Amino acid sequence: MNATGKISETRKLIDAARHEGLRVGFVPTMGALHAGHVSLIERARAENGFVVVSIFVNPTQFGANEDLSKYPRTFADDLEACMAAGADLVFHPDADEMYPPDATTTIHVAGVTEPMEGEHRPGHFDGVALVCAKLFNIVGACSAYFGEKDAQQVRVIERVVMDLDLPVEVVRCETVRDQDGLALSSRNRYLSGDERKRALSLSRALRSVESGVANGQRSASVLLDEARQLLDADAVDYFEIVDPTTLACVETVNGPVLVCGAIRIGATRLIDNITVGGRLT
Amino acid sequence: MNATGKISETRKLIDAARHEGLRVGFVPTMGALHAGHVSLIERARAENGFVVVSIFVNPTQFGANEDLSKYPRTFADDLEACMAAGADLVFHPDADEMYPPDATTTIHVAGVTEPMEGEHRPGHFDGVALVCAKLFNIVGACSAYFGEKDAQQVRVIERVVMDLDLPVEVVRCETVRDQDGLALSSRNRYLSGDERKRALSLSRALRSVESGVANGQRSASVLLDEARQLLDADAVDYFEIVDPTTLACVETVNGPVLVCGAIRIGATRLIDNITVGGRLT
Repeated sequence: MNATGKISETRKLIDAARHEGLRVGFVPTMGALHAGHVSLIERARAENGFVVVSIFVNPTQFGANEDLSKYPRTFADDLEACMAAGADLVFHPDADEMYPPDATTTIHVAGVTEPMEGEHRPGHFDGVALVCAKLFNIVGACSAYFGEKDAQQVRVIERVVMDLDLPVEVVRCETVRDQDGLALSSRNRYLSGDERKRALSLSRALRSVESGVANGQRSASVLLDEARQLLDADAVDYFEIVDPTTLACVETVNGPVLVCGAIRIGATRLIDNITVGGRLT
Repeated sequence: MNATGKISETRKLIDAARHEGLRVGFVPTMGALHAGHVSLIERARAENGFVVVSIFVNPTQFGANEDLSKYPRTFADDLEACMAAGADLVFHPDADEMYPPDATTTIHVAGVTEPMEGEHRPGHFDGVALVCAKLFNIVGACSAYFGEKDAQQVRVIERVVMDLDLPVEVVRCETVRDQDGLALSSRNRYLSGDERKRALSLSRALRSVESGVANGQRSASVLLDEARQLLDADAVDYFEIVDPTTLACVETVNGPVLVCGAIRIGATRLIDNITVGGRLT
């Protein structure tokens, strides 16, 4: 496995692989890798001849009061995890390599960026769009693997790929959960034992909507009222049932919908979602 | 020569050429081709194994009161000119192919977009940045040829390429002029005989700055005062001496600078520029 912080070296190694006729699979990450990331790398490995993982804690997607400075950095462990999962190349630029001081270009996506995370993290998805466009242009034509845990992010990235004609196939991968139902997240390591117990309320609330739908309830407001009783109202940023494409709130569950929530546990903010009412195509 | 309006077909033909080991040269145009465009295609032909020309009158770079609807369309002649100049592929999408109705992504470049054209054509360079990013992603790694007649546009595109890590080498090509000095432009065909004579004031004013500098004058304000006497003050959008990288106005000509102007002749708006004080590197 190769590892480099340089864009030029990354291009060279990927060009060489492509020249050999290998398909490229790409897993963009912010490091602090957990079993969710590992599952993305393993899937990329199974479906491609050359697997690139990027590790970059992207400053442009953090708000001024967010956790950029304390975001977990576990680089040595991350490299080992990449190697074990079968990555061929780890691209780990520093911020100056990605954002030279004279850069002035920004990307904005309207629509799917606006509800939910967009309301609570202004500017976040502009940062996501920019870093993904840059990473995709560095890596070139590829299949890119993203976890559905960040469902809104995946839809923003799909929008950027379509709207900018990027030669990228976005592959949505199922959320990986701990046995107790907590969706894996690099931010879970912020949680104390007690906080972790409280964090479980989010996946429980999601499952309550799933049960309600399974029992025939179709009214979003009824389903949400019930689910929200499982959450600490003061800690909820949002908890919604939305259209899986537009992310607009739905009134009635007819076909597959996303149930999405974000809660704050102490200083830690967690998000999670599930699809209910059918399978996404 | 092939010609297609479809993105997928364009990718396929270019991928096949690249697979044969051919370098790709790309000339993005809005059609209404003249000898300036032809010189770009010929240079792309000389320096590459496969030459792509795009013909697309990009609506997103026209303001509401600008000349989108009457912009000259000479498609049959354009195809002949492309063929004669040695193009391998003409990509001529319609607006729906480039901008599906659900697209919501925009690109903004700060800094070099702000003076001159940016002041007089708000939103213009956002449209240029978006269409170029899209075209570059469709064509893939290439050398892209642009005329220095649109000097500010070239710098905006260079900024987008750097900031988004596009695998594109931007090649600046010298402005082609008629014998009387008028810079070639698709918009010249709007001019009546009398208007064309008045249009020459712009290149004369640029040459006056060149002469002044050749005669030892270094003060931008002195040079500009003299040059502006050759222009109809009511018809000038701007006439400036600027740094060739930042496009900020300079006070003193020390080394190469751009002299840039825009004038209105009846309903026609023309721009032109020259480099004086040395050669750009």
